[in-house]
Formats: sequence, structure tokens, C-alpha cells
Amino acid sequence: MTSEADAHAATVGVAAGDSLRRIRQSRPLVHQITNFVVMNETANATLAIGALPVMAHAPEEVAEMATVARALVLNIGTLTREWVDSMILAGRAANAAGVPVVLDPVGVGSTMLRTDSARLILGRVSVAIVRGNAAEVATLAGQSADIRGVESMGATGDLSTLACTAARALGCIVAVTGPVDAVSDGHSTLRVANGHPMLATVSGTGCIASAISGCFAAVNPTQPLRAAAEALVALGVAGEDAAEHSTGPGSFHVALYDALYALSPDTIDRRARVSTA
Amino acid sequence: MTSEADAHAATVGVAAGDSLRRIRQSRPLVHQITNFVVMNETANATLAIGALPVMAHAPEEVAEMATVARALVLNIGTLTREWVDSMILAGRAANAAGVPVVLDPVGVGSTMLRTDSARLILGRVSVAIVRGNAAEVATLAGQSADIRGVESMGATGDLSTLACTAARALGCIVAVTGPVDAVSDGHSTLRVANGHPMLATVSGTGCIASAISGCFAAVNPTQPLRAAAEALVALGVAGEDAAEHSTGPGSFHVALYDALYALSPDTIDRRARVSTA
Amino acid sequence: MTSEADAHAATVGVAAGDSLRRIRQSRPLVHQITNFVVMNETANATLAIGALPVMAHAPEEVAEMATVARALVLNIGTLTREWVDSMILAGRAANAAGVPVVLDPVGVGSTMLRTDSARLILGRVSVAIVRGNAAEVATLAGQSADIRGVESMGATGDLSTLACTAARALGCIVAVTGPVDAVSDGHSTLRVANGHPMLATVSGTGCIASAISGCFAAVNPTQPLRAAAEALVALGVAGEDAAEHSTGPGSFHVALYDALYALSPDTIDRRARVSTA
Repeated sequence: MTSEADAHAATVGVAAGDSLRRIRQSRPLVHQITNFVVMNETANATLAIGALPVMAHAPEEVAEMATVARALVLNIGTLTREWVDSMILAGRAANAAGVPVVLDPVGVGSTMLRTDSARLILGRVSVAIVRGNAAEVATLAGQSADIRGVESMGATGDLSTLACTAARALGCIVAVTGPVDAVSDGHSTLRVANGHPMLATVSGTGCIASAISGCFAAVNPTQPLRAAAEALVALGVAGEDAAEHSTGPGSFHVALYDALYALSPDTIDRRARVSTA
Repeated sequence: MTSEADAHAATVGVAAGDSLRRIRQSRPLVHQITNFVVMNETANATLAIGALPVMAHAPEEVAEMATVARALVLNIGTLTREWVDSMILAGRAANAAGVPVVLDPVGVGSTMLRTDSARLILGRVSVAIVRGNAAEVATLAGQSADIRGVESMGATGDLSTLACTAARALGCIVAVTGPVDAVSDGHSTLRVANGHPMLATVSGTGCIASAISGCFAAVNPTQPLRAAAEALVALGVAGEDAAEHSTGPGSFHVALYDALYALSPDTIDRRARVSTA
Repeated sequence: MTSEADAHAATVGVAAGDSLRRIRQSRPLVHQITNFVVMNETANATLAIGALPVMAHAPEEVAEMATVARALVLNIGTLTREWVDSMILAGRAANAAGVPVVLDPVGVGSTMLRTDSARLILGRVSVAIVRGNAAEVATLAGQSADIRGVESMGATGDLSTLACTAARALGCIVAVTGPVDAVSDGHSTLRVANGHPMLATVSGTGCIASAISGCFAAVNPTQPLRAAAEALVALGVAGEDAAEHSTGPGSFHVALYDALYALSPDTIDRRARVSTA
């Protein structure tokens, strides 16, 4: 990371250290309606970054919980119709309360239920940030895509155009994660080159990216582009650190929580590899 | 820990080593109806301490499972009305069979559904031990409380008075966990000063405390005050050991299972920091 | 492991290295409808061995997902009637598409619901491999068994006769795991002596065995006996490696994913301890 790039990160409005400091000071509540595979993992990542997670999906309580939260994360990884109904209830309550909503469209493109459910949520809830892989985002943008279960199998070239196109189509911030991530509001598009290949060897690191996007959105509710990019910087830098303390996916997974917890607001921006697309 | 304190632990009826030895010899089945976030974690903590976990929530089988178990742990962390119905079915079967019941009122005070559901369970099931944080227990005792999701945000002074008041109000043992835990039957109140701040950095350590309370209750069904205090000694001592082998919440979490597994019945009582309030 | 035994493994048709190489090259999708306790664990084990996991249980999508998968794993660990219905829908779709189905009858024998549900699935779905512990398999074979929750408490003598009897009764491959595993098609029976006692200290390693059986079945759809034996070799060898890098169940659990990821197709067959019963 050169000082030129560092200056660039500031120029494009990314200041992860400042946000990280405010997350740890204010400990925002991040309400998550997410899948069974990763609930423990996103809860622990949320705690490690400094925010407070709460999982609640019952229709009787989701609106109440979303209203007192500072961000709401919706993740359709193990969806049913009932859970999607709860997501919409929570999302509309969050909208009414000015609470930013993050959507993770896990597996969109692999079954009709997933594609339809993500579209239903996007039609009923004002979503601030969609965070997905290339195949999921391409499907939502109306493009063809190659997905195998929840894994994007297509080419992983420059994702900037995809992010920008999808952001325009969906009318919100779109963050596409891959070897180099792309985040766009449909006009400005940022590339985030932090991260490590080991992140792809652990189930749920995409879901963790979405949960952390919620943490950064909680302290930047009016700047979702910034929040999404900073979240990917934070997870990416933590992934780089974790890779140095691990010998496989099990130890990498453990080291990732240690690394998120150890992230320093004073040094993270120097390590950010953010550029305009 | 002085020998005076050691003697004191014995005086107040706490002998964690004796219970731990009996858990490992008899391997009691501990039936848990708990939340999606921590199921794997409480199962592994139960195994590590030496007992056998089983998770079962279907209304068709909970009574049958609770009847053959040696303890039942009810945890409302990701509740729905259907799950609460199953908890009541299981709880009443446990009562009929003389199986002690532990209730973890996760998030009580944060939504009406949680507060109402915990009260409903307490009204329909004879609960031996309630284990919660200060805000959850205060809410159940009819006091005002500051909770953010599932996290108690209020002052963490001496919890002894709260534990005693709640025990009288609820008519059962109440264990309030915090920097220093308090366990009360409404007459005698014990303070347990074991533990480590890292326990608060991992999601579900409160739920683990409740699961381990079930393990100790399984071998002390007629002495729930003792069981609850011993469980907090065991988890606290394990937390102290885990902190010495970790560099953050991820590695602490892993080391906690190793430490629970390595707890020695011969030395644990010497390390217990139990006093009367 | 002697070269005689090595030769023997080849003689009985077991070539785990060849299958492992093909799993990592083709990255088969393994659809899993499994229990809440182990979803993250079986997903991560599936990834570590080289395949792609997907969890999906909604009745609207299970047939679609099972059809595009290369194997389907059904696990009744935290069953409800609705989930069993979804398992049958998925299983029948898998059958129609020629996708091999693995059934893990978790806790069969401990409640009527579990025993009835496993039998219902076996009656409606053509199952390629049943993978369970001694008590679960004995119950399915109509024998008496001693189970405590999900743990087999009976004698753990030679499981070969049990595997063979059950395979004949159920008309499919039966893999019984224990200190020495036995895999049978009702005619040929193999004993797999790989593994480590620490595998029994972590919740869900049986479920991981079933998930990995799905991975090996995915690349050997017409050779389920071979697939089941190779899966137990792979998990057993990984368990042996993990035990060398751990000090208790927490660190063993972490090391197990590292070891699965590090398994070498070039050396695994030399370490296989497979013999005919």
C-alpha cells in the first residue's frame, strides 16, 4: 500500500479507522435475520468488530427489534416463505425508523424460490446495500449467471461493471465480492483489493461480509457506499492477518475472529487497497 | 484463592470437583431446547464437561426425550411461539419425571415476545434454575433494566441483591452472571468471582453457562443452588485457563472447550472463588 | 499400515486418493438437509474435502436443488415432521435424477418420532448409504439397542455382523461407525480401522462422516460401498492428523478442518487401514 493509495482512499471518502472507532465506542445493535449455517459465525464476527448482534426472526418481535437496532441484515441462505415474511416485516419497520438494511441474496439464481424471494424483499423493503457474489448479483441484475448452490462458478474478471450495472438496476449500493471486490452506487464505483484466498475456504465468510457491512452502516447510515467499502476493507485486512496465523481453513477461521478483534483504527486505513474503477 | 476461601466454599456446600467426577462417571443426558446461534457451542461444552447433549424440539418427541434425560435446558434465544409451546411440553414432562429444568431467558426485556414467553414458561413449568444477565433477571423480577438485544447495558455493581430479590419473586434459584456472578435461593446468596473478561467477547458463553448448569443439576437434582454455583465455578475456571492460551475471541473460544475438557476434579475446588454475599 | 494392507485396500476396491482427486477437480455440489447443531460444521467439512455444500430445506426448493446436486445428504438430528416431508421431496427428486442419497438416522431408537421418521424416509426414498452409530443401525435393523439421546451406549465389539445384517434388512449400503467402522452391502463387509478417540469428543463428527460420504458418493454414484469406505478412511486419517496438532476437543475440532483440507490424494491410500471382515 503506497501513500498515494492511502491518499486515494481518503479522497474517495473511505475512512475505515474512523468508523471502526465509532463502532467500538457506540456498540450499535445489529439485528440479523440470517441462515442457520452461519448464525454463530456472523454473531461472533459482529462482536469481534465491536458491535452487538441479535438474532430474532419471530413475526411477533422482528419489527420491535429492528426498530431499536442501528442496522438490519437480511440473509436468505436457508430461507422459507415464513422467514421471508419476517424479513419483510423487519425491513419495513427498519425503513420507518431510518435503520439501514443490508440484503445478502445467498444462492439467488440456484432456485426459483431464492430468486423470487430476493426480488420480493427488494420490492417491499428499501435496501441500502446488497452484498453478494458475482452470480447472485448478476441474476438480480437480470443477467445470466453460473451458480452452483451458493458458489459463483463464472469468470471472476473485473466486477466493477457488474456492480455498477446492478446498482443502477436495483437503485441501491451493490457490493460484489470476489478476488477483488467492487462496490458501486451506480455512479461511483470502488474496487477493494484487500483479502486473502483462504476466505473462500470457510463457509459463511460472504455472510460475515454482509454482517460487517451492517456494522459499518450502523455508524454511517447516510453513507452506504462508504460503509460497504469500509466493511470489505476491514474484513479483507483481517483476512490478510488471519492467513499469517493459520495452516488451513479451520485455523484460518479461528484466526479471523482474533484478527477482526485486533483491527486497529489507527492503522487500518494505511492498509486499505481502495481505488476507483 | 486462600485456603480460607477454599474452606468457605466447602462450608457453603459447593464441591465442584465431586460433581464433576460424577458427571464424567455417569454421563447424564442433558436435553436442550435452545437457540440456533449456540446449538453447536452448548453441545460441545456439554460434551467437554463430560455429559451428553441432545437437541430436540419437535412437539411429538420433546416429552419423551425430556423424560429420559437427567436435566432439561430451555433457552429462548431465537424463539417462536411454536418453540415455546415445545419448551412447555418438555418442561411439564420433566417436572413429572423429577428432571430439573434450567431456563435461560435470553433477551427478556428487549421485546414483548421474549418477556411474555419467559413469564409463560415460568408460569407453566416448575423451573429449578434461572440463569441470565442482569437486565434479563431484573426484567423478570419486575424491575426496570437496560438491555440492547441480548446484552445487559446497565451498571454492573454487586448483583447479589438482584439475585436474591429475583429468587424470591420467581420462587427458584436465580443465577445472575456478570463480572462477579451471584446465585441465590432467596435466602442464601453466593458470589462466584471466577471467570475472565474474554468470556464476554464470544457469543453464547451465557448460553454455555446455562447448559453447564444443566450438567451440574443433572447430578445434583435436589441441590440446585449448589449446582448453579458449581457450574459457574467450572465455566469461570475454564475461562481463566482459556485466556492463558489465546490471543483473541476466536482462539479463546477454542481454548474454552479444551479447558472445560481438562478441568480436574482434584484441583477445581482449590480454585473456586465462592463467598457468601 | 503395511504394503500388504495397502494392496488389500486396492483389492477390495477402495482407492480414496483417486476419489479425493476427482472431488477436488469437479467440486461436486452436495445438498444437505441436516440438523441445526452441525450445519456449519458439515458445510466446512464439505468445503475442506474439496466439494461444495448447500443447505436448503424449504419444500418449494428442495427438489430443484437436489436435482442439480451430485449427492444428497439427509440427517434427522433436529427433525420436525415438516423437515422430514422436505427430506422425502428432496430424496425422491434425487432418485429421479440419479443423485445418490445418504441418510444419517441421528437418534433413532431414542424417540418414536426419530425411529418412525427414518423408516418413513427409507420406505419412500431409495437410499444409497445409511451412516449411523451402532444403536441407530441396530434399531433400524429391528434389534434392541441402548441409545442415550444420540449416543450409542452399548458394547462396541465387532460391528461387521451388524453392518451386514442391517444392509440386508435395508437393502442398501450400511456404514456403522465406532472404534473400528464397518461398511457392508449385505455380502461384502469392510472394516475401516482409521480414526482417533478424539473424534468422539466433538459434537457432529458422525454427521461430518455422513456429509463426507455424500462427497465421495458424488464422484462414485454407482459404487456406494466404495464411497462409504473411502469417506471413513478420509475422515479417519484426518482425525489421526488432527490429534497430533491438538490438546483437547476445541483444538482438535479446528485441526480436523485443516487436516481434511491437507489430505493428499498421493498418500491417503498408503494410510488406509481397510480389511475384509
